[in-house]
Amino acid sequence: MRGTILYGPGDVRVEDRPDPVIKEPTDAVIRTVATCVCGSDLWPYRGIDQLAKPRPYGHEYVGIVEEVGERVTTLTPGQFVVGGFYASDGTCAHCRAGFQFSCVNSSPFDGCQSELIRIPQADGTLFATPTLPDEELIPSLLALSDVMSTGWHAAVSANVQSGATVVVVGDGAVGLCAVLAARELGAERIIAMSRHESRQRIATDFGATDIVETRGDEGVAAVMELTDGVGADAVCEAVGTGESMTQAVRVVRPGGMVGVVGVPHGVELPLRQMFFGNVGVKGGPASVAQYLPTLLDKVLSRQIEPGKVFDLELPLEQVAEAYAAMDERRAIKVLLRP
Amino acid sequence: MRGTILYGPGDVRVEDRPDPVIKEPTDAVIRTVATCVCGSDLWPYRGIDQLAKPRPYGHEYVGIVEEVGERVTTLTPGQFVVGGFYASDGTCAHCRAGFQFSCVNSSPFDGCQSELIRIPQADGTLFATPTLPDEELIPSLLALSDVMSTGWHAAVSANVQSGATVVVVGDGAVGLCAVLAARELGAERIIAMSRHESRQRIATDFGATDIVETRGDEGVAAVMELTDGVGADAVCEAVGTGESMTQAVRVVRPGGMVGVVGVPHGVELPLRQMFFGNVGVKGGPASVAQYLPTLLDKVLSRQIEPGKVFDLELPLEQVAEAYAAMDERRAIKVLLRP
Repeated sequence: MRGTILYGPGDVRVEDRPDPVIKEPTDAVIRTVATCVCGSDLWPYRGIDQLAKPRPYGHEYVGIVEEVGERVTTLTPGQFVVGGFYASDGTCAHCRAGFQFSCVNSSPFDGCQSELIRIPQADGTLFATPTLPDEELIPSLLALSDVMSTGWHAAVSANVQSGATVVVVGDGAVGLCAVLAARELGAERIIAMSRHESRQRIATDFGATDIVETRGDEGVAAVMELTDGVGADAVCEAVGTGESMTQAVRVVRPGGMVGVVGVPHGVELPLRQMFFGNVGVKGGPASVAQYLPTLLDKVLSRQIEPGKVFDLELPLEQVAEAYAAMDERRAIKVLLRP
Repeated sequence: MRGTILYGPGDVRVEDRPDPVIKEPTDAVIRTVATCVCGSDLWPYRGIDQLAKPRPYGHEYVGIVEEVGERVTTLTPGQFVVGGFYASDGTCAHCRAGFQFSCVNSSPFDGCQSELIRIPQADGTLFATPTLPDEELIPSLLALSDVMSTGWHAAVSANVQSGATVVVVGDGAVGLCAVLAARELGAERIIAMSRHESRQRIATDFGATDIVETRGDEGVAAVMELTDGVGADAVCEAVGTGESMTQAVRVVRPGGMVGVVGVPHGVELPLRQMFFGNVGVKGGPASVAQYLPTLLDKVLSRQIEPGKVFDLELPLEQVAEAYAAMDERRAIKVLLRP
C-alpha cells in the first residue's frame, strides 16, 4: 500500500509500505476513505518536537472495515467506521470512567495517512455508521476522529454549561470545533479570539457571537469589556503555548475553568494568579470513544457540520503539499484521499 | 485593646493597640471570643514569606457584635458571629457566583489575634448564630472562620462526589478538615497521608478509612495498591509545596481532580504529566461565606466537630508560645482567648 513517512523537519513523503495485517485477535484492518493532517503533526514537521527516527504518520481516519480479528464482536467487513486517534478497549476502569486515553490496553497506531490502517482494540475504538454515509458527510465524520472530539473535550473540560459565556483561545480546527461544541452545550455567548478573516467566518458560522482580534493585554481588556469586567465562565484553550495558556487564564472569571486541549509546549502556568482567582485547569487528550455516539448522531442528523474546518482536499500522494499548506497557514486543515 | 503584631521571623508580640472603630458605614466592630493561629501565619513567622514591615496579624475569629455601621442591616450588637478570613460584600458578581474571595469590595482585615476586630462589609462577611452558642461549640465555630471552610473548599474544588475515593495530602488542621468535608460529601473511601500518630487519630475520627504514612514513590505505590492500581477520584492538597502538589497529581486517577488550598510556594506543576492523564487542578482561597450557612448548621446540630483540630488553648497574651508550638509541631492548631 501507499503510506506516509515523516522523515524529519519539512520532509514528509508517501512511499510503498507493507500492507498492515491482523496481529492480535482484537485488531481490525480498515481501508481508508479519508484521512488528514493534524495541527499536532506540525510540531515534529517544524522541528519543535524531535523525531528519533523516520516514522509512519497520521492519526485521523474514516474507512471501511476490511478484516477483523477473531475476538472482534461488534464489527464486520464492509462497514463504514470512525474511530479515535488512539486505541482503547472500552472495558478497563479508565475507559469506563470516560478517560479512554488512559486505557490500560491503549496502543499507538501505525500512521493513518495511508491506504490501509491496522486498528488495535477495534471493538473499543471503532464505531460503525448504520449505513454507508453520503459522500458529503465524509469530512464531518472524519472530523470526529480528532478535532471535533477534541474541541468537545475542551468544552467539557472547561465545564461549559447552558447559558454560559465562553472564550475560545486558538482559531485552528480544534479551536473552531470548540466554538461549535460550546454552542451545542448551550453556551449563550461565545467569544472567539481570532485574527484571521477566513477562520472568523467559520467561527461565526459555528456559533461565535463575538470575535476578539487582539491578544495579550489588549485581548484581555477586550474580553473584560464584553463581559462587564467579570470574565468568561469557561475558556477553551486549543493552542498549547505559554502565551495562549496565560491568555486563557487571564480572561476566565474567578472560579472559572480553563479546558486545555493544546499539548503543552514549554508552558509554565501562572500558578499564584490562578490560585488567588480560584481558576481551574483541566484537560488533555480527548475521550473520543466517550463522545463518538453523541457526535455521530449530531453529524448523521446534520445538526453539526464540523467538516467545514477542511478548506483544502488533496490526494494522499500530495501529502507533502498538505503539510506545507498547513505549516504556512494557507489552509486550516487538509483532507487527504487515498 | 491588646493585639498581636508580627515583627519578623520568630518575633511575634501582644501589645497595646488603638481600639478599632467604625470607618465605613458597612463596617462592624466585634469583641473577640476566640481567635487562633493559622498554618499560613507560619510562612512569614518562618521567614519564608517576607514581611515589608511589622503588622497586625491573624485572620480567624468568632465574637460578639459590639457596634455596627449605619448601613449594616443584618446584624445587631450582642449577637454571636462567625465570619470568614476576608471581607466580601455578598452582592457583587463574584460573590453571587460563590467566589467571595474575588469580591470587588473585598478588603483585608486588621489583625484578628486581638481583643477587638473591625470587620468591613459586615453584612456579607459575618453570620450570626440564632442564640449564644454553648461554650463547648466555640472551637468548632472558630474552625469555620478558615480551616473547616478551607477543607470544605478543597473537597468541593476536587469535585468529591458521593461514593468517591479521596486522598488528602497534608495532615495539618486544613487537611484534617478536608477529611471531614470528604466524609460529609459522601466519600466512601478516604485515604489520609499522615506520618503523625496524633493527627492520624483525628483523621480517623473525622472519617479517614485508610492512613498512608509514606511519601514520594512509596506513598504513590501505597495509594495505588489501595485503589487497585486506579488512583483516587479526587485529591485534596492542603500543603502548597512542590513536593505535596506532585504527590497529589501522582495519586489521582486519569480524569480526576486535585483540589488545591495550600498557598503555592515555589510550585511548578508537572504539566505534561497532568495533561496526558487529563488531571485537573482547581482551588484557591475558600468561599467561606458560601459555605457558612451549611457548615453552621452542621456544627450547631453537632453533626461535625471540626474544633477537634485545636489541641492547645492559650491566653492571647501567650501568642508567642502559640506560634512557637505550631512552628515546632508541638501543636496542630492553637486557640487563643483574649
